[in-house]
Amino acid sequence: MFQVTTFGESHGGGIGAVVDGCPPRLPLSEEMIQRDLDRRRPGQSRLTTLRNEADKAAILSGVFEGRTLGSPIAVLVGNTDARPGAYEEFKDVYRPSHADYTTEAKYGIRSWQGGGRASARETIGRVAAGAIARQLLGTAADIEVLAWVRQVGTITAEVDPAAVTLAGVEADATRCPSPEHAESMAEAIAAARRDGNSLGGIVECVAKGVPPGLGAPVFDKLDADLAKAALSLPAAKGFEIGSGFSGAALTGREHNDPFIPGPHGRPRTASNRSGGVQGGISNGEDIVIRVGFKPTATIASAQDTVDRDNNPVTLAARGRHDPCVLPRAVPMVEAQVLLVLADHWLRQRAVDVISGR
Amino acid sequence: MFQVTTFGESHGGGIGAVVDGCPPRLPLSEEMIQRDLDRRRPGQSRLTTLRNEADKAAILSGVFEGRTLGSPIAVLVGNTDARPGAYEEFKDVYRPSHADYTTEAKYGIRSWQGGGRASARETIGRVAAGAIARQLLGTAADIEVLAWVRQVGTITAEVDPAAVTLAGVEADATRCPSPEHAESMAEAIAAARRDGNSLGGIVECVAKGVPPGLGAPVFDKLDADLAKAALSLPAAKGFEIGSGFSGAALTGREHNDPFIPGPHGRPRTASNRSGGVQGGISNGEDIVIRVGFKPTATIASAQDTVDRDNNPVTLAARGRHDPCVLPRAVPMVEAQVLLVLADHWLRQRAVDVISGR
Amino acid sequence: MFQVTTFGESHGGGIGAVVDGCPPRLPLSEEMIQRDLDRRRPGQSRLTTLRNEADKAAILSGVFEGRTLGSPIAVLVGNTDARPGAYEEFKDVYRPSHADYTTEAKYGIRSWQGGGRASARETIGRVAAGAIARQLLGTAADIEVLAWVRQVGTITAEVDPAAVTLAGVEADATRCPSPEHAESMAEAIAAARRDGNSLGGIVECVAKGVPPGLGAPVFDKLDADLAKAALSLPAAKGFEIGSGFSGAALTGREHNDPFIPGPHGRPRTASNRSGGVQGGISNGEDIVIRVGFKPTATIASAQDTVDRDNNPVTLAARGRHDPCVLPRAVPMVEAQVLLVLADHWLRQRAVDVISGR
Amino acid sequence: MFQVTTFGESHGGGIGAVVDGCPPRLPLSEEMIQRDLDRRRPGQSRLTTLRNEADKAAILSGVFEGRTLGSPIAVLVGNTDARPGAYEEFKDVYRPSHADYTTEAKYGIRSWQGGGRASARETIGRVAAGAIARQLLGTAADIEVLAWVRQVGTITAEVDPAAVTLAGVEADATRCPSPEHAESMAEAIAAARRDGNSLGGIVECVAKGVPPGLGAPVFDKLDADLAKAALSLPAAKGFEIGSGFSGAALTGREHNDPFIPGPHGRPRTASNRSGGVQGGISNGEDIVIRVGFKPTATIASAQDTVDRDNNPVTLAARGRHDPCVLPRAVPMVEAQVLLVLADHWLRQRAVDVISGR
Repeated sequence: MFQVTTFGESHGGGIGAVVDGCPPRLPLSEEMIQRDLDRRRPGQSRLTTLRNEADKAAILSGVFEGRTLGSPIAVLVGNTDARPGAYEEFKDVYRPSHADYTTEAKYGIRSWQGGGRASARETIGRVAAGAIARQLLGTAADIEVLAWVRQVGTITAEVDPAAVTLAGVEADATRCPSPEHAESMAEAIAAARRDGNSLGGIVECVAKGVPPGLGAPVFDKLDADLAKAALSLPAAKGFEIGSGFSGAALTGREHNDPFIPGPHGRPRTASNRSGGVQGGISNGEDIVIRVGFKPTATIASAQDTVDRDNNPVTLAARGRHDPCVLPRAVPMVEAQVLLVLADHWLRQRAVDVISGR
Repeated sequence: MFQVTTFGESHGGGIGAVVDGCPPRLPLSEEMIQRDLDRRRPGQSRLTTLRNEADKAAILSGVFEGRTLGSPIAVLVGNTDARPGAYEEFKDVYRPSHADYTTEAKYGIRSWQGGGRASARETIGRVAAGAIARQLLGTAADIEVLAWVRQVGTITAEVDPAAVTLAGVEADATRCPSPEHAESMAEAIAAARRDGNSLGGIVECVAKGVPPGLGAPVFDKLDADLAKAALSLPAAKGFEIGSGFSGAALTGREHNDPFIPGPHGRPRTASNRSGGVQGGISNGEDIVIRVGFKPTATIASAQDTVDRDNNPVTLAARGRHDPCVLPRAVPMVEAQVLLVLADHWLRQRAVDVISGR
Repeated sequence: MFQVTTFGESHGGGIGAVVDGCPPRLPLSEEMIQRDLDRRRPGQSRLTTLRNEADKAAILSGVFEGRTLGSPIAVLVGNTDARPGAYEEFKDVYRPSHADYTTEAKYGIRSWQGGGRASARETIGRVAAGAIARQLLGTAADIEVLAWVRQVGTITAEVDPAAVTLAGVEADATRCPSPEHAESMAEAIAAARRDGNSLGGIVECVAKGVPPGLGAPVFDKLDADLAKAALSLPAAKGFEIGSGFSGAALTGREHNDPFIPGPHGRPRTASNRSGGVQGGISNGEDIVIRVGFKPTATIASAQDTVDRDNNPVTLAARGRHDPCVLPRAVPMVEAQVLLVLADHWLRQRAVDVISGR
Repeated sequence: MFQVTTFGESHGGGIGAVVDGCPPRLPLSEEMIQRDLDRRRPGQSRLTTLRNEADKAAILSGVFEGRTLGSPIAVLVGNTDARPGAYEEFKDVYRPSHADYTTEAKYGIRSWQGGGRASARETIGRVAAGAIARQLLGTAADIEVLAWVRQVGTITAEVDPAAVTLAGVEADATRCPSPEHAESMAEAIAAARRDGNSLGGIVECVAKGVPPGLGAPVFDKLDADLAKAALSLPAAKGFEIGSGFSGAALTGREHNDPFIPGPHGRPRTASNRSGGVQGGISNGEDIVIRVGFKPTATIASAQDTVDRDNNPVTLAARGRHDPCVLPRAVPMVEAQVLLVLADHWLRQRAVDVISGR
């Protein structure tokens, strides 16, 4: 119901999103969208790529006198610091573990300037759309979504999802809310950059205030849609909800979340190994997910690869790349979760229509 | 393009699937479908639920003189060993970590006989549809999909995806192709059953022969669709492709898969930490995924929970439940992977249409 | 939101429909579905095909203790009076203006027994699904849909959409509510049958009680979806809403529907040339459409055609065919309109969610 | 497969379209799109609205070095001659037979400046997308689509679809290829404008070179999708294919198209009352459709209506409106037909994949 189309390559006329299905009469401004784009944009700190893009969002349609019209909302962000020449070295060479070869295998053509459609710039459109979803869910349903960096390389910060705050996350450029871990992570990222290397990590995300009943029992399970949303982010390699893979080693007696009487005649659970979803449907507890990201594929070290003619070559990328995507991945994960929740929240409006429960 | 609709509750008129979009003229028989259903059905070994269902598939439409017509293929499986009375104890009580409460929260009504739509019996439809996808992919594209049990409880078998065979997987009722691990797993499952407890685990799956180019760069990334497919299985809590979460701790230099010249003028990779997908698109290497399953929620031990009136009660389930879903999850994971690949393989037919690559 | 999948050929294991998206807790019985199927079934009067099918509907899933569960509702109708041998003459010959050749051009294979998927029996699934939509719209929204035969061959009955009743329509086997026209139509149909010929005609349909606001301004205009629904019926060749083609000859002053103050603070229109839809969205007036049907293609007269080897042959069909589809097309048109309205009515639940109009 | 999203109101930041699913490597330029936009734009002749918009198309994404990338193609057209103040008179008044009231009924909010989303300017996006479809179908499949004005008010030109040419259509500003009728139509339109009145009419359209086999037998019949496409144009009230409504008065013997042996071992039909589609699937003959348009709702005559408070008022619109939409509707109808054909042509690529017909 909350449909998002994105368009744009990293070095073309701009990046955009069209959101169709946002309900009418929702207060919406460019500032609300800019807030999330600013957390995603390159050049925001010394930890990220040096490419400097203001990423200013313009709303082209769908908003009138500060409120949504119900018609498609188009948001456009220009490319201003594009330097296509800087990518000439990748024109005929496939970067290892990047999308260069697979793009060409699929389409038989590739915009080699900056990664084209596979560039992380594409996520601008999703972050912009996610900001609209955030405004909808916050206004109409008191749902909040917050993510943070849990792991960078081998450094892991155990964070209590119930206690983390936006201010705590944004206090450090790493977006890890544990100050001591944040400092170690920043040092590790700086070291990787100096070394022409890169780091991966894990983003954790919580959605609070999700009412019980969102999702579906079979194909469009809420956790299945969250998994798809997470894995559709660049460099994502894994997804967990609640206990995740560690739950596989527990027994049923250890893992089950006992129900206890809760307020308003509704049950709560005494623990939350389910991560807020049971049988594909939200149960009213916090939804907690984790997304694993591999280290950035483009590194400034010499690597073995092949060219378009299948000849072995050595490549040492220059370019302006993030040594670790994790800090900027935080608003991306939030956006993807927000889009899934907005869709399911709207779908539930069309389920609960016959009175007399 | 390969659309699957399923229907049916665990204790109603039957379970079925309708596959729309299967190409015409494909040889297809009920036996081809039955083969996979037999690997999924309850009662196939002492490790599974004691419910005994033959799960005989009947093709109602879409096949004529042994070949597909291009029209919707409907497959129906009857419920023969349903004992609705056995579930009366769950009518007004929510089983912990089961879908009882969330189903009621979503729909305001629940078929309490055997879990209704949330029953694992629903996967019959998907396994049947997956068998049709298997026949399509095998006939038209030489693609093979094989899964096995990698972990049960705390027992993990490291298996080489390149070497595993169907015979090796089917040699033991656990569907773990490592005989020594299989024996330990079987003992652990038997012990859990005796103890009124249950176990989780991990299924690993490989797809061989997938040509480079399947998938999409943004929303419908091949790995994103695989993640959704995996998480839409009952009890799944996590998904990984290639290096997965362990890759988050590696550096770029360690993680990147170097390209090397391969046959037919196409590159190969020297390692496969990508798991066969780069930038959301297959690269021609084996696709390797892992799916984490929590322990079965329904156990024969006393548990704290609440009833529909929000009163605390104690529940000790009887019923006929799998102490560990892993052995039967193997064909389910295969089916979900097959459905995703069939869809993307067909979609790619409509991409590669302008000559002159 | 109200998704319908149908399956089945005219001479296979049966015909069915799966409705996904019907809200939960709706009272629903097989009788409610049977009522509409009985109006569609062959052999109900001397005006229709002599094939005699009881067309008994069985609900396989999605209903529990007389109410919908919110899960997919599968309805199955068996084929009992199939005589595949009767169609052997069409095996290698293309009936003029039938789907024999185009089916083979598309799929390269054809179930020649009775028209396969192109048979009017396929509409069983849609009539069954439409009956569920009727129950939803009647229960939750007081929307009623009624169609009738307006024209058979060259005989046209001008009927006032505001005054027609179900009893009036069902009073005669032709389903024309004007008794004198009904008699002429019945005679014309009987004459066409005796002559080995067939007749076309026009069905008119009104939807009453549709609230203003259903539809969409661009792609999924309510009238566009009605047009698609109408043209997806066998033998349909034209669609009109309101003034239709005759409105093309009027001027703006003649054609515009003046608004007048109506009850409940809402405007009404003084005339209804718009047919209840303006700008793709319902305006609260009666929705009035007309669907033109060509004469039945299968006739018992000698016709020139070709065989599968492109050789000229002469064909005189036997078989059991309707000399005029119009009487049985009435419930089909109703079903298609009901399905469109149910979908848009549910979609509007997800539009009107921000308070403070 | 060929998905089009459009956005934009008549008086906002611009109008655009995003086309997803266009195959890669297709030569595409802004000029190819501009050609069709120029036929649609206002101010192109004395017969149309006086609003003067250059409607210059900019391709924002999806094209690289003159060829499509396979990624979404975004096209943006600015609004340059918007005069929102001119619409202030419609702010609180509903224009009869316009979308003002229904928009407000649906969304509870309305961009009253120039009709908002309901403005004919929205069709820019579809004409731009249609131009891309035209390039695809012409390049890959030799399919051509051409429309013309058949009727304006009470003046009807019988035109032979097989003989009409683009040059013939474009020779006159009316886009009626019969010179004598064109002159009468132009006079009638001029007279209507002087009189503060408006005229409707009929556009006819032919698609040549469509191979047999496009479409589907049930829901997505080719003619059903054409009907939806046609009725989704502003002011459309009716759709016909082939014999259309007049075919309803013929007998089967008169109406059936006899098959005759054709070249390449494929049958042809001796007549084309089917309009190129049989059983929802193309048969290789010319596809011929007609779309009926009502007279423009906005006229410069005094009309009875109500305001937003349900009070009766009299309205005499000023503004800059087409006295007859027909000449500009020609490229719109072509675009809608092109979009349907591109989608079905691509879908058929995924049907015909098993060898051995």
